[in-house]
Amino acid sequence: MEKRISGTTGLFTLLGSPVGHSGSPAMYNFSFQQQGLDYAYLAFDVKKDQMPEAIDALRLFKVRGSNVTMPCKSVAATLADELSPAAKIVGAINVIVNDNGKLTGHITDGIGFVRNLKENGVEVAGKKLVILGAGGAATAVQVQCALDGAKAITIFNQDDAFYANAEKTQQKLKAVKPDVEVKVYPLADQARLTAEIKKADILVNATIVGMKPLDHQSLVDPSELRPDLVVADTVYNPLKTKLIEDAEALGCTVAPGKGMLLWQGDAAYTLFTGKAMPTAEYQAYEARQAAKTH
Amino acid sequence: MEKRISGTTGLFTLLGSPVGHSGSPAMYNFSFQQQGLDYAYLAFDVKKDQMPEAIDALRLFKVRGSNVTMPCKSVAATLADELSPAAKIVGAINVIVNDNGKLTGHITDGIGFVRNLKENGVEVAGKKLVILGAGGAATAVQVQCALDGAKAITIFNQDDAFYANAEKTQQKLKAVKPDVEVKVYPLADQARLTAEIKKADILVNATIVGMKPLDHQSLVDPSELRPDLVVADTVYNPLKTKLIEDAEALGCTVAPGKGMLLWQGDAAYTLFTGKAMPTAEYQAYEARQAAKTH
Repeated sequence: MEKRISGTTGLFTLLGSPVGHSGSPAMYNFSFQQQGLDYAYLAFDVKKDQMPEAIDALRLFKVRGSNVTMPCKSVAATLADELSPAAKIVGAINVIVNDNGKLTGHITDGIGFVRNLKENGVEVAGKKLVILGAGGAATAVQVQCALDGAKAITIFNQDDAFYANAEKTQQKLKAVKPDVEVKVYPLADQARLTAEIKKADILVNATIVGMKPLDHQSLVDPSELRPDLVVADTVYNPLKTKLIEDAEALGCTVAPGKGMLLWQGDAAYTLFTGKAMPTAEYQAYEARQAAKTH
Repeated sequence: MEKRISGTTGLFTLLGSPVGHSGSPAMYNFSFQQQGLDYAYLAFDVKKDQMPEAIDALRLFKVRGSNVTMPCKSVAATLADELSPAAKIVGAINVIVNDNGKLTGHITDGIGFVRNLKENGVEVAGKKLVILGAGGAATAVQVQCALDGAKAITIFNQDDAFYANAEKTQQKLKAVKPDVEVKVYPLADQARLTAEIKKADILVNATIVGMKPLDHQSLVDPSELRPDLVVADTVYNPLKTKLIEDAEALGCTVAPGKGMLLWQGDAAYTLFTGKAMPTAEYQAYEARQAAKTH
């Protein structure tokens, strides 16, 4: 550390609330050090209404870039100077790149999701997807899959406040990707869900069902799955959700949420530094740390 | 590093311009790491007119504390919520402590000067000082020496824009320390300088004469010095000014500027952390680094 931080060291930040338990500072600082980059990464607890001032501070201190997390991702999108195509459609950002004072917002959640599929041998282009959920992560996944050439996306969501999100996503995608067939149905329509999963290549859970304390729950009955269905989850705690376990038991190709988390971070790292993140080295380091503390 | 910075790591900053070559980030980060403190210290290039916004950012990001350097020390004093007694008189600060949103400004240059004398076996209390200079460092030294019980302080300065500073310091000290005899004379009055040095216990150079590229220059002729005169300098580049060399040759007790620099940093560190800085360890580390690169 004393050898690394000097008067010229550039800062990257994580903005959101809470951030105290984020793994991002450890991951990015490890990577900067591995690659000999003169940067440091720190987390700051910033509420939604403080984001305009926080963005001013990024400019003032020439902070090189920032991650943005809950609950600040939507307001941050309104404060950036430019947005990536995906961020424009999603209306939320998790990455800000400061290019000599011009702040560009990106959303890498969907990029991480698609990369996670790819690392598991699955291409999104030309595929039919069923995606459960209409929150922030779900929307980012839906938009990126459409931009990356999915053939059809069928969204199921509870008939709650987020349902309208899915319909908005459908409208927006119609404008920019008219060839992608996007449909939206209430999750209560179980017959429709069964029929759509039957036609799908890839099933995605992008709801919090399966996440602690909702682990041991799944929105899809194991009887709906079949071995040639690819099953992905955005949940990474637990590392294997009930849905992923059910799918693995049947022999499906699976893509658990931890990979999406890793690859969205890698995508942000590349936007920040122009380099690939040393993910293998970091995973090995994490494993060594975990072995020490358990 | 990867073990040290986490989501809860607190930030300390250095604000000023330029700051790229400051040694402070290395010194403070070394010390934080030595003492297992969950802090990081980074420098940000901030101009005078950007200081109000920078101070807002310190509050927003809950930055634990900050050093302030040229040219921002005076404006920073106007932006703090409270000032230490010395900072109030000097009208400039080099340290801000953020105590749950309340920013207190301190000036540790004078504290570092007095500590440097003490480390060289010299107490200021009861002493007569001749101090050359009326700039920022000179003023901080004059005020702290008065607060710490000096008997008399005679200030010499060129008849330039800073001369009025010395007269202001004289007025302010009259109000808070009426027992200290403070006099101000133009440096051109060489007969007066000779007479005052003759009566003095401690002679201080707080001008830039002696600093590169004015090294090999001194405002005091060696014939004015005598072995029982203590000679101090605020200049630390070169480590020994011509004045310090002349004084050492005569057998005077000397206090070169490097010690003042170190102890003003130590005083700031104590204000930041409540602990003494591991100065001996840092000096040993610096020496090892210097040996490596030369």
